[in-house]
Amino acid sequence: MKAKREALVSLFTAMREGKVDADIIDHLLLINSIRGIYTTSSCSGRIGIMEEPDLGAKPLARWLIKVHRPMEFEEAREALRNAEKGLIFLKSQPPIFHIVAEDVEKAKRLHELGLASGFKYTTFKVVSKRYLVEINATEYLTAPLGRDGRILVDDEYLRFAVDLGNDMLRRSKGRLPRLEEKFRALREELGEDELFYELAERYMIEENWKLP
Amino acid sequence: MKAKREALVSLFTAMREGKVDADIIDHLLLINSIRGIYTTSSCSGRIGIMEEPDLGAKPLARWLIKVHRPMEFEEAREALRNAEKGLIFLKSQPPIFHIVAEDVEKAKRLHELGLASGFKYTTFKVVSKRYLVEINATEYLTAPLGRDGRILVDDEYLRFAVDLGNDMLRRSKGRLPRLEEKFRALREELGEDELFYELAERYMIEENWKLP
Repeated sequence: MKAKREALVSLFTAMREGKVDADIIDHLLLINSIRGIYTTSSCSGRIGIMEEPDLGAKPLARWLIKVHRPMEFEEAREALRNAEKGLIFLKSQPPIFHIVAEDVEKAKRLHELGLASGFKYTTFKVVSKRYLVEINATEYLTAPLGRDGRILVDDEYLRFAVDLGNDMLRRSKGRLPRLEEKFRALREELGEDELFYELAERYMIEENWKLP
Repeated sequence: MKAKREALVSLFTAMREGKVDADIIDHLLLINSIRGIYTTSSCSGRIGIMEEPDLGAKPLARWLIKVHRPMEFEEAREALRNAEKGLIFLKSQPPIFHIVAEDVEKAKRLHELGLASGFKYTTFKVVSKRYLVEINATEYLTAPLGRDGRILVDDEYLRFAVDLGNDMLRRSKGRLPRLEEKFRALREELGEDELFYELAERYMIEENWKLP
């Protein structure tokens, strides 16, 4: 799989540059060590405050703060000082994994695995003959806080909404261990991928991380 | 397709009982008149205020108000008086169509059709050997408003959030005409389903609606 080789090179490079969320590195290594599947962009779940210039203008959105762990109330309040233009949202988003499968049978297995791990928004797509499974959960919070630099909520509300977003993040991240277990079982079944170990050695991944 | 027969009976019965969102009835009739595909639960997009007893306790959630058109500020404020227990959310959700396809080729076509109509969250699943396509968009608003009967936002915020939810609803519903066009083209290609017309006649659908 030429595409898997490229995906692995890109993952290992990003890891060495510190650009991969630490709390899903074990998952990403494990999944990519399995024959016939590999990950593309994935996220360990995050909470933050985003400014969107206009409804639906997502490409122009910018994060005032974004963290992959619960956010402190003070961090949120501080970040809001930098709001300038457009709609301001508090967003909490669950972990999300994008996994390519080489055939429809493996895509179905991944789909079942995601659902069985509590990721209820797990779906798949066919993109130019490749099967792309998205393992995704339902804990999405999109709370508008104001517009054009003006905050329309008070501190009590902000604390309430940040707490809620943090609870949702903890709940969704809490499923990561179960997901890991299921992938371990899948690996028993589908087998290890030699390509993964070959490239992991070339990129000296074992210097900093434990290989599955 | 026995399953399509059951789905059509259930749709026509619900229509006659006034239980189907009026602004997608034309879509549902059109889609179901196409050979090899049929709809299951679908929604024309909605906005409302929901009370959830606890995080993740969706089955116990109840709507204080839910409408399939923009919501008035006064309606929202009135509905909030009935809040009692649990988390209170303002929710805006785009149209969503669930369509079963008899084979993977048709599922792929539906997937492309959804994306091409601007429904960017269109995905599919395999559920017990059937291909289920979900045509879905990104305009989701989930704004917490308070907890246990206590509202933590003021009128200015409520008006802001309701306006935003309405804008999102209008934007997503605005794609329905394009979606309809695409389904007309698909019908040209896949052909009409006799079963649809046979059952539409038995359930006297033409008494109240125009058949595609």
